[in-house]
Amino acid sequence: MQHGEGPTEKCGVVGVALADRDAARPLYYSLYALQHRGQDSAGIVTHDGFQQHSHVEMGLVGDAFGPDDLDDLNGSAGIGHVRYPTAGSVNTSCAQPFSVSFKSGALGLAHNGNLVNTDELRDELESLGHAFTSDGDTEVIAHDLARNLLDSDLIRAVKRTMGRMHGSYALTVMHDDTVLGVRDPRGNRPLCLGELEDGYVLASESAAIDTLDGTLVRDVQPGELIVLEADGSGYDSYQLFEEETAAHCFFEHVYFARPDSVIDDRLVYEARRNLGRALWEESGIETDAVMPVPDSGRAFASGYADAAQEAGAGTEFAEGLMKNRYVGRTFIMPTQNERERAVRLKLNPIKSTVEGRSVTLIDDSIVRGTTSTQLVDLLRDAGATEVHLRIGAPPIVAPCYMGIDMATREELIAAGQSTEDIRDSIGADSLSYLSIDAVAGAIGQSRADLCLGCVTGEYPFDIEGEETDRELERPTVGERELADD
Amino acid sequence: MQHGEGPTEKCGVVGVALADRDAARPLYYSLYALQHRGQDSAGIVTHDGFQQHSHVEMGLVGDAFGPDDLDDLNGSAGIGHVRYPTAGSVNTSCAQPFSVSFKSGALGLAHNGNLVNTDELRDELESLGHAFTSDGDTEVIAHDLARNLLDSDLIRAVKRTMGRMHGSYALTVMHDDTVLGVRDPRGNRPLCLGELEDGYVLASESAAIDTLDGTLVRDVQPGELIVLEADGSGYDSYQLFEEETAAHCFFEHVYFARPDSVIDDRLVYEARRNLGRALWEESGIETDAVMPVPDSGRAFASGYADAAQEAGAGTEFAEGLMKNRYVGRTFIMPTQNERERAVRLKLNPIKSTVEGRSVTLIDDSIVRGTTSTQLVDLLRDAGATEVHLRIGAPPIVAPCYMGIDMATREELIAAGQSTEDIRDSIGADSLSYLSIDAVAGAIGQSRADLCLGCVTGEYPFDIEGEETDRELERPTVGERELADD
Amino acid sequence: MQHGEGPTEKCGVVGVALADRDAARPLYYSLYALQHRGQDSAGIVTHDGFQQHSHVEMGLVGDAFGPDDLDDLNGSAGIGHVRYPTAGSVNTSCAQPFSVSFKSGALGLAHNGNLVNTDELRDELESLGHAFTSDGDTEVIAHDLARNLLDSDLIRAVKRTMGRMHGSYALTVMHDDTVLGVRDPRGNRPLCLGELEDGYVLASESAAIDTLDGTLVRDVQPGELIVLEADGSGYDSYQLFEEETAAHCFFEHVYFARPDSVIDDRLVYEARRNLGRALWEESGIETDAVMPVPDSGRAFASGYADAAQEAGAGTEFAEGLMKNRYVGRTFIMPTQNERERAVRLKLNPIKSTVEGRSVTLIDDSIVRGTTSTQLVDLLRDAGATEVHLRIGAPPIVAPCYMGIDMATREELIAAGQSTEDIRDSIGADSLSYLSIDAVAGAIGQSRADLCLGCVTGEYPFDIEGEETDRELERPTVGERELADD
Amino acid sequence: MQHGEGPTEKCGVVGVALADRDAARPLYYSLYALQHRGQDSAGIVTHDGFQQHSHVEMGLVGDAFGPDDLDDLNGSAGIGHVRYPTAGSVNTSCAQPFSVSFKSGALGLAHNGNLVNTDELRDELESLGHAFTSDGDTEVIAHDLARNLLDSDLIRAVKRTMGRMHGSYALTVMHDDTVLGVRDPRGNRPLCLGELEDGYVLASESAAIDTLDGTLVRDVQPGELIVLEADGSGYDSYQLFEEETAAHCFFEHVYFARPDSVIDDRLVYEARRNLGRALWEESGIETDAVMPVPDSGRAFASGYADAAQEAGAGTEFAEGLMKNRYVGRTFIMPTQNERERAVRLKLNPIKSTVEGRSVTLIDDSIVRGTTSTQLVDLLRDAGATEVHLRIGAPPIVAPCYMGIDMATREELIAAGQSTEDIRDSIGADSLSYLSIDAVAGAIGQSRADLCLGCVTGEYPFDIEGEETDRELERPTVGERELADD
Repeated sequence: MQHGEGPTEKCGVVGVALADRDAARPLYYSLYALQHRGQDSAGIVTHDGFQQHSHVEMGLVGDAFGPDDLDDLNGSAGIGHVRYPTAGSVNTSCAQPFSVSFKSGALGLAHNGNLVNTDELRDELESLGHAFTSDGDTEVIAHDLARNLLDSDLIRAVKRTMGRMHGSYALTVMHDDTVLGVRDPRGNRPLCLGELEDGYVLASESAAIDTLDGTLVRDVQPGELIVLEADGSGYDSYQLFEEETAAHCFFEHVYFARPDSVIDDRLVYEARRNLGRALWEESGIETDAVMPVPDSGRAFASGYADAAQEAGAGTEFAEGLMKNRYVGRTFIMPTQNERERAVRLKLNPIKSTVEGRSVTLIDDSIVRGTTSTQLVDLLRDAGATEVHLRIGAPPIVAPCYMGIDMATREELIAAGQSTEDIRDSIGADSLSYLSIDAVAGAIGQSRADLCLGCVTGEYPFDIEGEETDRELERPTVGERELADD
Repeated sequence: MQHGEGPTEKCGVVGVALADRDAARPLYYSLYALQHRGQDSAGIVTHDGFQQHSHVEMGLVGDAFGPDDLDDLNGSAGIGHVRYPTAGSVNTSCAQPFSVSFKSGALGLAHNGNLVNTDELRDELESLGHAFTSDGDTEVIAHDLARNLLDSDLIRAVKRTMGRMHGSYALTVMHDDTVLGVRDPRGNRPLCLGELEDGYVLASESAAIDTLDGTLVRDVQPGELIVLEADGSGYDSYQLFEEETAAHCFFEHVYFARPDSVIDDRLVYEARRNLGRALWEESGIETDAVMPVPDSGRAFASGYADAAQEAGAGTEFAEGLMKNRYVGRTFIMPTQNERERAVRLKLNPIKSTVEGRSVTLIDDSIVRGTTSTQLVDLLRDAGATEVHLRIGAPPIVAPCYMGIDMATREELIAAGQSTEDIRDSIGADSLSYLSIDAVAGAIGQSRADLCLGCVTGEYPFDIEGEETDRELERPTVGERELADD
Repeated sequence: MQHGEGPTEKCGVVGVALADRDAARPLYYSLYALQHRGQDSAGIVTHDGFQQHSHVEMGLVGDAFGPDDLDDLNGSAGIGHVRYPTAGSVNTSCAQPFSVSFKSGALGLAHNGNLVNTDELRDELESLGHAFTSDGDTEVIAHDLARNLLDSDLIRAVKRTMGRMHGSYALTVMHDDTVLGVRDPRGNRPLCLGELEDGYVLASESAAIDTLDGTLVRDVQPGELIVLEADGSGYDSYQLFEEETAAHCFFEHVYFARPDSVIDDRLVYEARRNLGRALWEESGIETDAVMPVPDSGRAFASGYADAAQEAGAGTEFAEGLMKNRYVGRTFIMPTQNERERAVRLKLNPIKSTVEGRSVTLIDDSIVRGTTSTQLVDLLRDAGATEVHLRIGAPPIVAPCYMGIDMATREELIAAGQSTEDIRDSIGADSLSYLSIDAVAGAIGQSRADLCLGCVTGEYPFDIEGEETDRELERPTVGERELADD
Repeated sequence: MQHGEGPTEKCGVVGVALADRDAARPLYYSLYALQHRGQDSAGIVTHDGFQQHSHVEMGLVGDAFGPDDLDDLNGSAGIGHVRYPTAGSVNTSCAQPFSVSFKSGALGLAHNGNLVNTDELRDELESLGHAFTSDGDTEVIAHDLARNLLDSDLIRAVKRTMGRMHGSYALTVMHDDTVLGVRDPRGNRPLCLGELEDGYVLASESAAIDTLDGTLVRDVQPGELIVLEADGSGYDSYQLFEEETAAHCFFEHVYFARPDSVIDDRLVYEARRNLGRALWEESGIETDAVMPVPDSGRAFASGYADAAQEAGAGTEFAEGLMKNRYVGRTFIMPTQNERERAVRLKLNPIKSTVEGRSVTLIDDSIVRGTTSTQLVDLLRDAGATEVHLRIGAPPIVAPCYMGIDMATREELIAAGQSTEDIRDSIGADSLSYLSIDAVAGAIGQSRADLCLGCVTGEYPFDIEGEETDRELERPTVGERELADD
């Protein structure tokens, strides 16, 4: 699946506490490492012990910050954010980190995920006199936390707010110069902890830690709060909530995360190669060539080809589609009735791999099916005798409510269609998806610990109008409020 | 005094309610008419009966809004703002109108003035759990008003908030689609009411009403609240506070306001001509020519010349300095050791008026004295035999805390210096200021009804470290809270 | 007449040679002083003795150059240009100075004016193999000069090229590091020479010399070539052509030039005051007030009011229209059917001057008549009992071919209409223009020495389809070519 | 080798003639397909039968053109260009296509390559009176061609100009609405011809033809002129020059061209896979893993891995370095003494592939050696036990004068160093380059038909101060001029 056409990830977060140098540049570089998680806006909030500093702007990390902006972000502790809009409108006022000052100091929040009870929380807070400048989740979390901090210490206040939040979240938070990270009780969104030479870092993905020449310590656990020491000398852990099962997003492994990141103990590149291997095992077909959709299908195709080879199949692994990497912001795409075709501007077949041959095309997923259809068409035009499509994930049949902008149910090609119908619509000679069990196996998680909402339509959280994946004893908001400490 | 070098006015506000067309364009044009009051940012908030719409951006009115922005601002009621930073840092988050949603709907606020008890109010609100995204006055007012609206109707809530605010303010406010305007109990900042063919308008200056082809109804009174009918059919007035004396800012008449505006019943152009006449009467001197500093001294010089002529003095009124009106944002000014002189780029003497002649130069005020010194120098270089300086206001000896960025006390040339010292420092052959009484006379107010802080150092509000101009029985915040209704 | 609505001047030129500092900054400041002559593009070309440096960009002087751009423009000699498009399309390729390298070095040219035989010259040069990158006059002049320099010294080459050019021009030229200035044989466009502490300067207007703290030496004479010494130590003069009469553009005095400039020995401000005096003498009318259209009519109105007063008329001089000086580039003007009126955004009546009074409005000229009509309307709306219009120039009845973009003949309100018709169309109670003889008198030139094309329709140069103002013995291009040395 | 750090290709050219639709969009899309050949500026020139239209701007194709720009480029014939500066300074005036009008119409030129006798040609033309606005090759070619067209037909004029040009070039040219393409007599730069449904296209690479859904007809031959019929119905071929041997640039195959392009009859992707195979054969080493430098080494590594596998080596092909594809224009790179490392921002090791393993890293070439050193370092840090480097081309020991900006001889790590020295400097456990003969074999050309200047220091053209690769009987410019027809 081509980035930009498939699901769009919603945000990357980071937090840093260092011994005695400014956090701004490490934050900047780690946001850059997470740029694939959000290209809409970028922001950094730091605290120098006395005062909070903030710079949030629309655009890519490299465009949002100038050298002067970084110089102004004083302080050895800070958090950062890159975003796609999840909830709340797309403008500067919703860009993050969100920062407020309140009775007990200054708060900064960076959020990846999506709450399902925001309206409920907002109503409660408004009844208490709160006024909101945006319609985003993050401001609601900030106000709730600020309120809880009026009469609780930090740990208890976080716990109380977490007890009231329902949905997926990985948060980095600053309370004055204290940096914290929390992950929702079922660990839907990823968050990990790294050690630097002179401090600690929290990040959505471990690749951000690598960029800072740091070492991955471990994933933050579902329901865990990590508090970094302000002087970078260590961290404390508080397991605030424990649930029996997790609800990790398998799509991070399939599509969103960088191949070089380790998510929930599993290197994404290896997971994808395993998914490719499993794909061969479940539905391998011997063709002249097997080729990835660049760049999304590359690791899958590599695993698939290795498995094919081990199985003695005479299938050559080769690049069959060349990607044009230069797209200006304002590039004018061809209209329907122009003879030039949009897909051809992005991907061009390499004839020697394709012409007169049967080929298997490997991708990670199909959302709307538009690009797949165009690619099958393109390969046939380039002379492919057969085009088989193998997908390293199950069919996506339902929307995501956990922080990913998949598409509406109407737009999803697999919603309510059989695989044969989809194959027919796409025009491939054969089409196979991967089974859910194979996915669970390849990423080393039990099926029960995964959020499979988008491939089953059953969700780990109550979504109005959707089914829940199991019967959880879930307290109401009121109960949680009373029960939290 | 040249604009850009003298005091900078802090903001213009406007509010409009119309029968059945969108308020966005009338708001846009009226902000343009108030552009001289703030070039830092511009914003409009409208409400269409269901929803609030907001567009706030840095820059001039003409640059901050595109046609699409105006089209998106639906609704026949709205408020607008142009700003210079008064309190709060200079960035987007402080630009106005400030808008929030809260239990009872949506609020928008546009503020001209400066509160002196913001920190106190903020502390109180923070104790109640409020969190603030900016360090500006306006957010504090918005939160206070939102809180009061939890258990009061609009009129009582405004009254309660006004009772708690201490300082100068002219506000336009939207509560959902209701537009209101209030002026502080001593009327420090101007605000007036106008009637349009199909609605009503509130604005800092009447010139904004003219731009909309409307008619000035009257000034909003000190302590008065005006509520516009949502359908543009009328307005209601509530005299919420009454004080014995006003504290009108005389500097609006001398410097800030447009000559074509009527402020507190007095046309500014006429006030300035009267100030010029009074200047002749108090310290007229017969020279070959009298000339304004363009454009600030023009009306003063015209009145001065008329009075001189009536007195039979042979003083010719002529332009002696030509202004260059083209300055790009990024124009590179000469450094100290370059031979080209910065003042010469802006003002060039007209030789025939100056050469071999004694001249009187008229300006409205002197802040730092830098430009005056340069102009006297320039005129001498151009061949003036004598250069006399006449100023249409008293010496500015103290800073303004009521919403104008004068300068610090250290920067003010008249702080702690005699007129003779200033004359010597500027290099003029003679220098005279206007007396306070003459100012009061020329603008048709009693001296007791003016805020004269910047020329006396005695202020109508308690400023930490400054004297108060009289003994007021002023309740504390707590008392006011209880007493307000 | 409002700038931006009236005729648009076509370009300002400047040239500088200094002893031992870079010319870039003096050129930059002098272009800024000439900014009113062209806001479309700005450019500077310098030469450091070895190499030419050039920076030309669209936009205002302050926007076209950054500090680095100035630093890169090495060399103590250079020329500069601000422009409106005269001939040639409006884009970067037509911006000036135009620079080329050729056999004998490097040439730079900055041109104010308009040639009437460009096509003829271009055809001749193309027959000799020349290829052109633009369709502007200036490239043609550059090529012709480069060709003549192949076998002539600089003076003879300039003379030969001037002999072939037909039309109006004031040029500053660089040949390597030699700066020259020439004015067409009838002196249509202005050009003057100034002395600096450490060099010499050529400029369209003397105000540019003032800006550099220099002294006006004198006007360059019609047909004269001035060559500046490269070390700034002096200049040489060559009277290359002499014609019996000049054809000075009277509109420079009436409208284009800065009031503080001296053009052909006459200070523009004084000329305009004299025009105002003459206007009273020819058609003065006693009304309650006389007021200028700001800023164009101010000097006229001042002279008119002085003459009225000397004549004992009880007419008060006062500002009656207030100008809004803030217009962003992208300001959205009201459409026809919006209630806000475009003219009101720019000019607002000052009621005390106008209401219940008879007024005389003074302007410099009328081109299309649109603004005049709106202003008369505006004054009546503001309560004027009578509105009389007095114009400090004759009716403009024909287009300009000499370098000014007046309007087409169809657009000119005075083309083919009597003054009474115009008055009726504009809606004034009375309307008077100034006579040509009065203009000649006020600017101190004989009528025969003026280009009066736009007010008589008879031109000092052969324009296809237009009349010539006299029978000149004018050699054909071929003859001129042979005869020139 | 990372793009942006290695040699920079100099320009891509295209030309299109269609039956009855505008050429602008096909030109735009084909330039986008050639974007990798130049990101500095982009331009299109079209002709509508009456008039030439041109739009040239700095920046990427997508940024240089808006929809209106394309709409303004009328005409069914046109040429286009993307560029890196070869000769001539980097600014708008050097951007291409270069267009001029001259006696016989309008010319447009787009040039890829570098002339070695530009100065000579320029001097000759200047002696004839020509003046130049830029210091680029292309203007010189345009002037020469315009001059030759004064007394020759198009074919003879092109031949005469080609006879005078010495160096490498692939040109697309427009003479009015006739589009032509020529390739230098030794075919140094690529150019190919394609057929569209409704016309013909000339382009630097066949991928541009694919983008337009066209078919590659064949390469333009060295010394051949192709003239497209204006109505898109066909083309004529003129073999104007024939030399015994060609001098094809082998670096196009190794580095510059897109993998999906066919250059001189050879698909680039296959050539690279063959180079990888040859690399295994010449210097294969069995390590745990073989991995490409992304993206430049990918096809090489794939061929190398296939050959290794066929040879029974237990070397796994895997991605070992993950590339971050998001770089804003203004991204702030770490300074030397910051702990974050610049290379880590771009490439991050995938630990599972690298840790505790011996690895072979494959790249296409080494220029300065900086990146290679950093990557070896990075892999060792990630736990590689051995790092072997294999390069799919010979050592680059000398600069390119044929249109590629390699580096200066001083900067080239292989200039004057043995492979062992380089290995030592880079820190690899072993290092091997590919032999020249293997290169010739892999791209299917005889060694004599390749330009090998950068790897041998012997050039196919006379370069001042460099050796020539053979003794050619090369006529002087004067002789060529006489001999050409």
